[in-house]
Amino acid sequence: MADVVLYEVFEEEADALRRCWPKEIKAKFTDKTIQERRPSFPHSPFICVRTQSIIPESWASKLKGILTRSAGYDHLLAYLQKTGKKIPCGYLPQYCARAVAEHAVMVAFELLRKTKKQQRQFASFNRDGLTGKELLGKNILVLGVGNIGSQIVEIAQGLNMQVKGFDRDKKKKTLEYVSLEQGLRWADVIVCALSLNKETKGLLDKKNLSSAKKGAVFINIARGEISPTKDLLALLEEGHLGGLGLDVFEEEALFAGALRGRKKLGDQHKKVLKLMGRDDVILTPHNAFNTEEAVMRKAQQTAEAARMFLKERKFPFPVPAE
Amino acid sequence: MADVVLYEVFEEEADALRRCWPKEIKAKFTDKTIQERRPSFPHSPFICVRTQSIIPESWASKLKGILTRSAGYDHLLAYLQKTGKKIPCGYLPQYCARAVAEHAVMVAFELLRKTKKQQRQFASFNRDGLTGKELLGKNILVLGVGNIGSQIVEIAQGLNMQVKGFDRDKKKKTLEYVSLEQGLRWADVIVCALSLNKETKGLLDKKNLSSAKKGAVFINIARGEISPTKDLLALLEEGHLGGLGLDVFEEEALFAGALRGRKKLGDQHKKVLKLMGRDDVILTPHNAFNTEEAVMRKAQQTAEAARMFLKERKFPFPVPAE
Repeated sequence: MADVVLYEVFEEEADALRRCWPKEIKAKFTDKTIQERRPSFPHSPFICVRTQSIIPESWASKLKGILTRSAGYDHLLAYLQKTGKKIPCGYLPQYCARAVAEHAVMVAFELLRKTKKQQRQFASFNRDGLTGKELLGKNILVLGVGNIGSQIVEIAQGLNMQVKGFDRDKKKKTLEYVSLEQGLRWADVIVCALSLNKETKGLLDKKNLSSAKKGAVFINIARGEISPTKDLLALLEEGHLGGLGLDVFEEEALFAGALRGRKKLGDQHKKVLKLMGRDDVILTPHNAFNTEEAVMRKAQQTAEAARMFLKERKFPFPVPAE
Repeated sequence: MADVVLYEVFEEEADALRRCWPKEIKAKFTDKTIQERRPSFPHSPFICVRTQSIIPESWASKLKGILTRSAGYDHLLAYLQKTGKKIPCGYLPQYCARAVAEHAVMVAFELLRKTKKQQRQFASFNRDGLTGKELLGKNILVLGVGNIGSQIVEIAQGLNMQVKGFDRDKKKKTLEYVSLEQGLRWADVIVCALSLNKETKGLLDKKNLSSAKKGAVFINIARGEISPTKDLLALLEEGHLGGLGLDVFEEEALFAGALRGRKKLGDQHKKVLKLMGRDDVILTPHNAFNTEEAVMRKAQQTAEAARMFLKERKFPFPVPAE
């Protein structure tokens, strides 16, 4: 039996893991999610997932530890709550903050400069309707100023944007914090980098986002559940939002599974596909974390966490109780 | 007769011009290039073009002034040289430096993060082959450190990249200047912001660009003639260049005209179309200048230049003799 089974390992991640994996730990890698493998029992009492595996409730009594190779851990908290078990859980908070932050800023550029339309109209060398906006001097609101949000703040300041933050904890001394409504009224660019929890679930719904300036662009690189797709689509169609960048989606495990397996989509997921064809929408497959630098850091931190767990039954970064 | 005829005026530019145009100047706007109108004589002795009008040689004796609404003026120098006339010529050096610089940095992000492939693979939520690179700490070489190049330097420094410059004039005190070969060997990202002149025409050909690191990305927002398309395509196909961003093209007036009119393309232009389908290539229709901020500045500066020329027969920014 393997010491640990790692699910959802994509090509480049497998390469990085092989380069730094400790010889003494027997690991099994698969590119599949747990539900794609459909095993009736865990192949190891220690499992390692990303965000799209649905861990069966029947496994709870057999699992001794769960590590998520992600900066978010809302899915593990939900599993512990649902099963009522106290399984030690770990996560990787710091491997990808810069990668995600740079992705968010890239998408801000892409929306303000109409990059999809620019590239489409290249075929006829037609410049009508291609006038964009500069980031210089624009107002950017960063929602959630943790590891990722802090990096977004720093990049935006480096681009000479005006930056404000919204967070329960006001840790960053050089940043002006505002209320959600104040911030939304002020911002040209709104970026969601909040953790998903009871307070933030559905926080950026139609009612709250209606405070935003007409034409503001909204980017979510955190969790889809914070901002309902149907609300975002309505705000775009009404011309209230000027652009939308999503790297994360509601019920993403189901959504991604359906897209990969070409299965039937639920109604809120059909709405996401409706967004795909729009020039003012940039959709990416939860890939903001995915840089060579972050993948290497993640592989090293995964190996380190596995080593510590197998030796000491605890994680370098344990998932905190809610 | 109009006091001035403005060619190549696109929708948003016409709106901006109407908002700031002086009542006392009779102007005629058209969205066409001169060759698309095919007049046998100028409709005014004072004409105003962008970069894609081909001014007939037969007009030279009838023209009293030419203003180009662009930061480059190589096309006017070529016209004066070909016709042997000394017609007063003006240009607009400063309206769009930030817009072009932000576009160049956006394209660097897009190439390093494989944005085309990310968006394409969204449809199957497949992340294989989507690992990108962060800009943080990467080496960027700015070729041509004038108005636009200086802004690229500042943005890249704000993103905490390592920046070096290549220019005949070493005006920027805070920048390390290097030779072309030194710079190319060192850079992860190469941006061409050079003026087109005898020294720079064909400068970034296959021979010189072969000094670049394997996998470096190349972005040209200056003039297509500085870097032959066939050489860029060869370097991409050999896997030497890791990505390519072009906003400008060889013989662009002919190329754009052919694309707009769906006419027959020449061989070097067929090579450009071959680039279009590649995930590692971002092509835009000479649109880097095109922001609301720049369009408004340009309209104001065009009105100001027209006013000065009609009163004093000289331009605020005269095209310097070569």
